Amino acid sequence: MTIEVDYRFPAGVDPHKQAKIIAIGQTVGTWDARFAHREAALQSHLGEVISVQTEAQTDYSIATIRFPKTNVENDIASLLTMIFGKYSMAGAAKIVEVRLPQSYGRLPKLGITGIRERLGVFERPLVMAIFKPALGLSAGDHAAILAEVAYAGLDIIKDDEILGDLDIAPTLERLQECRKVIEEVKQKTGRTILYAVNVTGRADKLLEKARLLVRQGANALLVNVLSYGFSVLEALAADPEINVPIFAHPALAGALCAAPDYGMAYSVVLGTLMAHAGADAVLYPAHYGSLPFDSVEEGKIRDILRSRSVFPVPSAGIHPGIVPKALADYGQDVILNAGTGIMDHPDGAAAGVQAFFEALERVGGGESFALDILPLGPLRRAVEKWGSD
Amino acid sequence: MTIEVDYRFPAGVDPHKQAKIIAIGQTVGTWDARFAHREAALQSHLGEVISVQTEAQTDYSIATIRFPKTNVENDIASLLTMIFGKYSMAGAAKIVEVRLPQSYGRLPKLGITGIRERLGVFERPLVMAIFKPALGLSAGDHAAILAEVAYAGLDIIKDDEILGDLDIAPTLERLQECRKVIEEVKQKTGRTILYAVNVTGRADKLLEKARLLVRQGANALLVNVLSYGFSVLEALAADPEINVPIFAHPALAGALCAAPDYGMAYSVVLGTLMAHAGADAVLYPAHYGSLPFDSVEEGKIRDILRSRSVFPVPSAGIHPGIVPKALADYGQDVILNAGTGIMDHPDGAAAGVQAFFEALERVGGGESFALDILPLGPLRRAVEKWGSD
Repeated sequence: MTIEVDYRFPAGVDPHKQAKIIAIGQTVGTWDARFAHREAALQSHLGEVISVQTEAQTDYSIATIRFPKTNVENDIASLLTMIFGKYSMAGAAKIVEVRLPQSYGRLPKLGITGIRERLGVFERPLVMAIFKPALGLSAGDHAAILAEVAYAGLDIIKDDEILGDLDIAPTLERLQECRKVIEEVKQKTGRTILYAVNVTGRADKLLEKARLLVRQGANALLVNVLSYGFSVLEALAADPEINVPIFAHPALAGALCAAPDYGMAYSVVLGTLMAHAGADAVLYPAHYGSLPFDSVEEGKIRDILRSRSVFPVPSAGIHPGIVPKALADYGQDVILNAGTGIMDHPDGAAAGVQAFFEALERVGGGESFALDILPLGPLRRAVEKWGSD
Repeated sequence: MTIEVDYRFPAGVDPHKQAKIIAIGQTVGTWDARFAHREAALQSHLGEVISVQTEAQTDYSIATIRFPKTNVENDIASLLTMIFGKYSMAGAAKIVEVRLPQSYGRLPKLGITGIRERLGVFERPLVMAIFKPALGLSAGDHAAILAEVAYAGLDIIKDDEILGDLDIAPTLERLQECRKVIEEVKQKTGRTILYAVNVTGRADKLLEKARLLVRQGANALLVNVLSYGFSVLEALAADPEINVPIFAHPALAGALCAAPDYGMAYSVVLGTLMAHAGADAVLYPAHYGSLPFDSVEEGKIRDILRSRSVFPVPSAGIHPGIVPKALADYGQDVILNAGTGIMDHPDGAAAGVQAFFEALERVGGGESFALDILPLGPLRRAVEKWGSD
């Protein structure tokens, strides 16, 4: 199978000309009579313009280019270099879709099924929290917060993506302190809590640290894939020692995806590329959250991730009041990831978690979230603060 | 010293509001009375709005935010997550300048001086070629091309960035075939030719392969830094076994930098970040080349790279006719990097190299490039084909 890429051009760009530039310039690059004897070999590497279509209403055009799979190394980095390496600097063009063979790259080691098995939770959305404040807490503070939310029923917690391996709370210390809580919760309640530890550092150190963390009991990892590189995610995903789910964070995605006429669509970067790079779960902004995000792109990300059994994690500004909307959009196979939506609950983080479970039950029972009907308790307090959708 | 970042906002965005969102949201993230006892620790991690200025003519605003160095890990990835991680998804904003402490990150192992020492060439611009066609040649074809250009006086050659470790010309085979030529040239002429081999693969394999290539005699490496990740460049730069210059390729830079109001300026990504990540030489589009590029950004990249002794390599559409302009802009400390501008010379690649040296001499002698004055020979033929600036 081949690789197909849709490039979208704004009005004023000649899409036929650009399509040819891409098909040749991003593959064989040039042609010289000296290499006539190798014409067959060159031809087999050449890109091909499949179609060029202009939308009458918007004057946007989409050119579809087919690339030979033999030009790339079955990974994301070589794919990016081929489909957008030099051409990304050539003018206004946005990659809006990338169609890869199913076998391209890798599938998650664990994905939706594996994460559910680790947690022993099969029939409801998972509830995930983020340690807040992002910076300034000690390892002990992290453990204290974890104890609060874990006993309240939380499934997963993650570091804030900004928190690296800093003196104030070194990564290994955070893990060690939080592990004690996780083990205690397991003993007392039988429940497993996953803690996605943020793994950072230059590539060699990051891979080493990830292995060390897993040996020391880390049961999930968080990676800022776009800051560190897809090649780092792929290395972690390929490593048999890293037998824990990898949560991919979208930090920096806007630099690649937010511009209307440049870069790549969010659904390409946070959907297709993440899903073929081995992520087990991918975080991305929800359109009803605190970041401006398009619901169509969000839906594409969800569907692309699920098509490869990767857990979708809509994030940013998630609070208990949006649960009805989230369940309508996602059904059960979703991780509801809340930072301040849990940590800044007026009655504390435990109440934040309880509010989510109360919300899940209420949606299950088909009950309204109207303030005048909501019973006293964590959900009502959350809706009073953040509203409902 | 601290880290300062300039964010530029288009008209319609409230720069004061956004500046505060960045200063808090990209550091401590939130604030809760429960952590009052840790207020000092939180404060020490908080970003600070230094200034917000609006340009009357354009209505663009620039907000300068100062970040504590203690929030990051002295590398590029953690820096990116901090300065633009989540915020990149928040709306129209472009990072136009990043000011780092001199000590932040790393300096090149070799840089301008080291590369010149390896070549034994101290007082003129270096001339660099790119293997073309990019795909479809065998390892033997590469060696044959190298022999042509090497005896014509070339200093450096590099793989096309698109050419990975492919069956048709595996990386190690290309190196082995080209090394024979390099050794023969050394024996016969005493001259050193650097061959920047494109090193690819997922992070762990790439680092392994780079060490293998160097053990097998590679005397330079090429890395698509933005496809693979800054963390990979940093790992290579930190590795004592990688005692050869690393050439950083700008593939994919447009996806991060080309949009007017999103992402990061080219001078940030290809200048500041590359120069603090350990690259020895950095390629980027020249404004008189084949890609649309701003001369001011190009000048900034040049100056930022040189300030850390990194070799500037203006590229894309470079041909002998632009040498007068390039020398006026760059003086001697520049690598003139030509792909088709050498390989597609009407009289062949060797003539392409000769044309560059003829051009350098002519500029040295203050002579005109006007076609009616140019003597018969490689330079004249090049100017007939590509013109002059």
